[in-house]
Amino acid sequence: MSSTALLILVVEGGIVRVIVDLCVVPLGVGVSVSREVAACQKVLDEAGLHTVLHAYGTNIEGDWDEVFDAIKRCHEVVHEMGAPRISTTIKLGTRTDRKQSMQDKVRSVEQRLRQD
Amino acid sequence: MSSTALLILVVEGGIVRVIVDLCVVPLGVGVSVSREVAACQKVLDEAGLHTVLHAYGTNIEGDWDEVFDAIKRCHEVVHEMGAPRISTTIKLGTRTDRKQSMQDKVRSVEQRLRQD
Amino acid sequence: MSSTALLILVVEGGIVRVIVDLCVVPLGVGVSVSREVAACQKVLDEAGLHTVLHAYGTNIEGDWDEVFDAIKRCHEVVHEMGAPRISTTIKLGTRTDRKQSMQDKVRSVEQRLRQD
Amino acid sequence: MSSTALLILVVEGGIVRVIVDLCVVPLGVGVSVSREVAACQKVLDEAGLHTVLHAYGTNIEGDWDEVFDAIKRCHEVVHEMGAPRISTTIKLGTRTDRKQSMQDKVRSVEQRLRQD
Repeated sequence: MSSTALLILVVEGGIVRVIVDLCVVPLGVGVSVSREVAACQKVLDEAGLHTVLHAYGTNIEGDWDEVFDAIKRCHEVVHEMGAPRISTTIKLGTRTDRKQSMQDKVRSVEQRLRQD
Repeated sequence: MSSTALLILVVEGGIVRVIVDLCVVPLGVGVSVSREVAACQKVLDEAGLHTVLHAYGTNIEGDWDEVFDAIKRCHEVVHEMGAPRISTTIKLGTRTDRKQSMQDKVRSVEQRLRQD
Repeated sequence: MSSTALLILVVEGGIVRVIVDLCVVPLGVGVSVSREVAACQKVLDEAGLHTVLHAYGTNIEGDWDEVFDAIKRCHEVVHEMGAPRISTTIKLGTRTDRKQSMQDKVRSVEQRLRQD
Repeated sequence: MSSTALLILVVEGGIVRVIVDLCVVPLGVGVSVSREVAACQKVLDEAGLHTVLHAYGTNIEGDWDEVFDAIKRCHEVVHEMGAPRISTTIKLGTRTDRKQSMQDKVRSVEQRLRQD
């Protein structure tokens, strides 16, 4: 195992932190998908995850396993609600050089915009 | 041309409205990408587009051609800044049944959450 | 304009080459989407674009404007077929350091796998 | 638990099958990413997953937990190789109405194209 991997263990106690952008699209339930998106939001809330809803998905911050367990649960719940098919898009970031929250990422860009 | 296409023309005056989620990732410029993301934000602002920055991209609302012209300009600007390679992810929604803004989409989910 | 932008003009004659991964998901048309995906394939073929269909999208190689004109046409055609709503995911790569085709990208990874 | 969920259990023995499109982009390692993509391919092979490499990612077919364990391992391995930051895009499909392999999806579109 490399020293970088060791760094992950030291910094994060063996836990990989992720920032995720999740967009769940149920098929076969008609045009509106807000009912299913709201159900996913509840799953994420019940999992205790930090989330921010936006116009084309939900940002999630948390430990890898907790985040992906919750995403799996979202698929199960949306199928249980009657959707026979789901197509989901996920963007997913990890980094070992430093801790960075969702808020840090937005602030970092906003600072640049003010500087220029 | 079908009656649906005609509907688009009537409703939108021939202009296709889109809601986009844009995430531009420059390669070969190091670990931080906030400088390039800020430059893209300026391009979008100068194009007069309605945008909302979030932790994993930027939501954009506008006419198809204006939005995609601006996205092309983002790639040009980020290459000009020195990035030899860019990998971008776009989510893109259009609908002909009704007008729906980015704010409408978020509100629609939030209403569901309050109802339950 | 920077020297990098000049490089683009020299190398590509002012034309930005892109490699795109396109995934068009119509909503409100039921569970099967193969009819709409096939219609998009025809649009791309008629535009003379080089494409490779895979299990979760279509790879497209071409000039930026031609590729995005065709993607817009895909949305128009799928709406004309009756889909009131479309949610599309696009991955999009450009580079100024060298020309690289879709086949080059796959070969580059396959060579690495043989070397190890 | 609803009868639909029960259907999943009956049809799949409690295992959720997924078709995934995975695109791992390491940041801070320069312009070429083929070394990291090849390393991910090995991780997926060692996990015994069925994969198809394409020009903008890798299609994967398998059980949810096995696929996502392998994707997590990809992030760990690419960090161990020295990438301080990774931005990954995943498309992910599940369905409860019928079994469908990656090959079925491609065939379904190709059949449509021949019929027209």
